[in-house]
Amino acid sequence: MPAGLAFEDFRPGDVAEYGDLVVDRADMLDFAREFDPQPMHVSEEAARGSMLGELIASGWYTAALLMRMNCDEFLLDARSLGSPGVDSLEWRAPVRAGDRLTVRREVLSARRVPGRPEAGLVKFRFDVVNQDGAVVMRQVSQKLIGRRAEAA
Amino acid sequence: MPAGLAFEDFRPGDVAEYGDLVVDRADMLDFAREFDPQPMHVSEEAARGSMLGELIASGWYTAALLMRMNCDEFLLDARSLGSPGVDSLEWRAPVRAGDRLTVRREVLSARRVPGRPEAGLVKFRFDVVNQDGAVVMRQVSQKLIGRRAEAA
Repeated sequence: MPAGLAFEDFRPGDVAEYGDLVVDRADMLDFAREFDPQPMHVSEEAARGSMLGELIASGWYTAALLMRMNCDEFLLDARSLGSPGVDSLEWRAPVRAGDRLTVRREVLSARRVPGRPEAGLVKFRFDVVNQDGAVVMRQVSQKLIGRRAEAA
Repeated sequence: MPAGLAFEDFRPGDVAEYGDLVVDRADMLDFAREFDPQPMHVSEEAARGSMLGELIASGWYTAALLMRMNCDEFLLDARSLGSPGVDSLEWRAPVRAGDRLTVRREVLSARRVPGRPEAGLVKFRFDVVNQDGAVVMRQVSQKLIGRRAEAA
């Protein structure tokens, strides 16, 4: 078990802000071409006929960028054992190339898991916020995180 | 408005099965290094000390692969206007390099949206199934899909 953040370090109500990532146009397009080649995601020209009329990121790209910011901020330094899933994911506003994204994280709950003395489930709400303060994506998800050795 | 599948073509209870995608090891690792570099996702060696003790795909990679299979099967041929979000996403079993994935899609509901005469919201359940018949990921999500011109 690595050192680092443990289940006990996440308390309901805790808030953290982090991340500072500028959406790279080429990377955004590469992702879209590989995973989500809908017209509004693959080129300005194709996007012109879409609902918003402009090029926007795939929502799954924004989700992947959030995962990266979470890894860099705390997951790689935590006793992270994986995730059973996502409770909800809302795409609230478009993400465009050049947008600057940050994350606001709140711990919603932290609970023990029957039959798993070594870990607990932490439920987070992650808001991805752009340079104008708009929440572009909100995700509620759970992570299984190891307890401290002395507690387990 | 392109031709193709419209809101009216999705009826609650409709089931479809499609996709046939073998998880490529190099692509899976590329994704993990870019977006989710946790030990269990980036190399066999690093994964050895993880909960499952073996290399597995990032859950976000599986979600991206589902999006790709959905695009290829129907979204690129539908009047897809985007998605407000995901109701739930469960990672139920590990995905490994070499796994062969298919999709089972069911339409859960289809409803009109107040103030949007031109479109409707279709709620789908997508099960991603591996070569052994195990559901590795289940996603419930909604898509905004244009109505037929004569209906709108």
